[in-house]
Amino acid sequence: MQRRNEISKQIGLIKNKLRINVKDDKVEQDIRLFVSKLSTEIGIDHEFAGRLLNILFAESLRLQENDKKQDAPQFGTHLAIFMKAKQLEATGKKVIHMEVGEPDFRPPKTVKKALSRVYDLGHYRYTETRGIPELRSAIAQKIGNHIGANQVIVTPGARFAVFSAIASFLTTGDEMICIEPAWPAYRECGTFVGSTTKSLRTTLEEGWNPDIKNLEQMINSNTRMIVLNYPNNPTGKVLNRNIANKIVSLAKDHAIYLLSDEVYSDYAYNDFKSILEYGYEKTIIISSFSKGHAMTGFRVGYAIAEEQMIDKMAKVQGTALTSVAEPMQYAALAAVDASPTVNARSMNRRLEVISNKLREMSLPFKSPDGGMYLYPKLRDGLNDARVVNKALDLGVAVAPGSGFGECYSQFIRISACQHTDLLLKGLDLLQKAIDS
Amino acid sequence: MQRRNEISKQIGLIKNKLRINVKDDKVEQDIRLFVSKLSTEIGIDHEFAGRLLNILFAESLRLQENDKKQDAPQFGTHLAIFMKAKQLEATGKKVIHMEVGEPDFRPPKTVKKALSRVYDLGHYRYTETRGIPELRSAIAQKIGNHIGANQVIVTPGARFAVFSAIASFLTTGDEMICIEPAWPAYRECGTFVGSTTKSLRTTLEEGWNPDIKNLEQMINSNTRMIVLNYPNNPTGKVLNRNIANKIVSLAKDHAIYLLSDEVYSDYAYNDFKSILEYGYEKTIIISSFSKGHAMTGFRVGYAIAEEQMIDKMAKVQGTALTSVAEPMQYAALAAVDASPTVNARSMNRRLEVISNKLREMSLPFKSPDGGMYLYPKLRDGLNDARVVNKALDLGVAVAPGSGFGECYSQFIRISACQHTDLLLKGLDLLQKAIDS
Repeated sequence: MQRRNEISKQIGLIKNKLRINVKDDKVEQDIRLFVSKLSTEIGIDHEFAGRLLNILFAESLRLQENDKKQDAPQFGTHLAIFMKAKQLEATGKKVIHMEVGEPDFRPPKTVKKALSRVYDLGHYRYTETRGIPELRSAIAQKIGNHIGANQVIVTPGARFAVFSAIASFLTTGDEMICIEPAWPAYRECGTFVGSTTKSLRTTLEEGWNPDIKNLEQMINSNTRMIVLNYPNNPTGKVLNRNIANKIVSLAKDHAIYLLSDEVYSDYAYNDFKSILEYGYEKTIIISSFSKGHAMTGFRVGYAIAEEQMIDKMAKVQGTALTSVAEPMQYAALAAVDASPTVNARSMNRRLEVISNKLREMSLPFKSPDGGMYLYPKLRDGLNDARVVNKALDLGVAVAPGSGFGECYSQFIRISACQHTDLLLKGLDLLQKAIDS
Repeated sequence: MQRRNEISKQIGLIKNKLRINVKDDKVEQDIRLFVSKLSTEIGIDHEFAGRLLNILFAESLRLQENDKKQDAPQFGTHLAIFMKAKQLEATGKKVIHMEVGEPDFRPPKTVKKALSRVYDLGHYRYTETRGIPELRSAIAQKIGNHIGANQVIVTPGARFAVFSAIASFLTTGDEMICIEPAWPAYRECGTFVGSTTKSLRTTLEEGWNPDIKNLEQMINSNTRMIVLNYPNNPTGKVLNRNIANKIVSLAKDHAIYLLSDEVYSDYAYNDFKSILEYGYEKTIIISSFSKGHAMTGFRVGYAIAEEQMIDKMAKVQGTALTSVAEPMQYAALAAVDASPTVNARSMNRRLEVISNKLREMSLPFKSPDGGMYLYPKLRDGLNDARVVNKALDLGVAVAPGSGFGECYSQFIRISACQHTDLLLKGLDLLQKAIDS
């Protein structure tokens, strides 16, 4: 720690000398120019020097982020609110949980039987790193689209699929583009591997549609991945096919990886087409059993991609954790053919109940095309920190909007993972928090 | 990939220009001197320039390793042999598995009941990132030594505990020291985070004792961690207390992290003292339910360290995978008080059976103090690749010694995770492979 802090200080000193603010694009360009000249002077290849600079910027940014995260109270995320709510509950207070994305449905009944058979069948050994062949085949078959079992890797939750995709295809100094508001995991994984995340911001006013021109302008020689997440957490947006098509084309033109997190695809209420169907070979599709089958705690997710890409992800998985727990893989196998329709219908009905109430409360939002959340806007003068904390005091936990992107502090995320009577009670408390 | 290859080429060109071979310490020193002078010329702090160079070396090494791993047939590891054996079995051939470290015992009976209750008890949700409090408390209590639940993190297998410890405390350009022969996971995790692994080699002739003077000389300003693994995989060695004491002192003097992988501690047949008891605050102890309780496929391991260090590891775990599967945590909780004595006695007996046979076969080895393996030396003129492949043809899989360190190609690792009659049959086949 001591030595790392020294280094951090050194980088700080250098940055002061050179007035570096790595988050400022103009300054970054100036430095690039300076280093380019320097590299000519000392006879080092320009591109190589640029690469070196990327690594330096990334290291500096990572150290800054580390410092920030250790100091800050981490108000920002839905998880922080969840933890705070849990602490309140430990003191005897009742809290309605509308902050976390964990469906309250039961997993398919078939899972119960599978669990009770694990011991006698001896399904508790190391498996192939990428998962038992039966489960990979079953997933491939369910996905269809000519996917083979060798294009599937089973991961401990979709989150690890995201992690290993980012760790496989990005390295220090690379850039990733996220369309915000976004689940913070993408950026966290990017920071972990030393890459930089650039945000393409979308707005409620424009129906959460990404601006393709802006996206194109953000792409540079360091850009390695675009992350998509539709149906979206937190907005419930599903891209129309025209826009999706343009994004895939852009990725193709620049040979950029496309990471499509489709964990909410079982909760698509309107027309939804997987990015898989656009047929771009550098696509990684991510999904899981957590949402559609209400199996969050089993930690079974998966990724679909070209075999060579899956090979790379398997290498990361093998390095980090050998394989997914075999009993959990058999539980997932028992669930793979269960229909998520009943859950989806129930979730949709709940979203409608919340929508009606939000209209009464005059909180603007875009009607969700899918997912488990609503992302309404607070009136001018209010911010998420104030409302979320007030609401928690009153007994309802909702997620701060800024957890999904710095500039969304006028939003909150409401999760529909509760019975409607509790949801309505929670919204009454939210109204009080807003009024007070 | 294309761009990364370009960069790799550029680094190659620069290296050629400067005649860099980053694995050659003499050359590395020359470059350091050169860069030190350069930094004076262009007015950059020496230490900072040195740090930059570390990052550059690490990046270059990582790219080289990547290239190597993609090209090479990966003969080297026990896992590669396991995969090859599985392929042979798929064609109908019988193979005796003496290559993998997976006990063939059944998990404790209590685990069966726990699994059958998971569904009805609703134990299938997200848990705290560091694990359910009951399991952390139970582990803390079992460990004793005044450890609290806040000093425990439950991980998906000991392997992820190793991964997250290395990812938490090492970064690009840092150095880690491994005492070889060693489980390859340590080095793989180090390479993943961009750190360099230096090997302290031990020999059969010196009873696998590390040379403390050599260890001291290997420590430099970049050294951040020493990895210990006793009872050892693959040698079965347990350090005597005097040597362990000296290593802990060295780590203390240089404020270096001490990672002690003690997953085989249930299989210690002689005097064994956990590194935890030496009371050095930068120690991380790693263990799991996999070996002692024969629960490999449940993927439940844990780490013990100071609370602040556990906090850092929890951040890595949260980023990578949210939490360990809740049903698996309850299975581990059901096993935590089960005694591993019967398993240990059985394993020890098997090791004795193999030892007697190896003596008959005139293969020298050191009698194991613990663990599940024997690591005998082949006679001059033989190497592991030849013997291992020949043995596999004949129907027995053993692990190549060089998988545990480049210079151990005259060794093989024999795992005792089978019934004695199979072990003896396997050794007969091994004898044939050696003779042919």
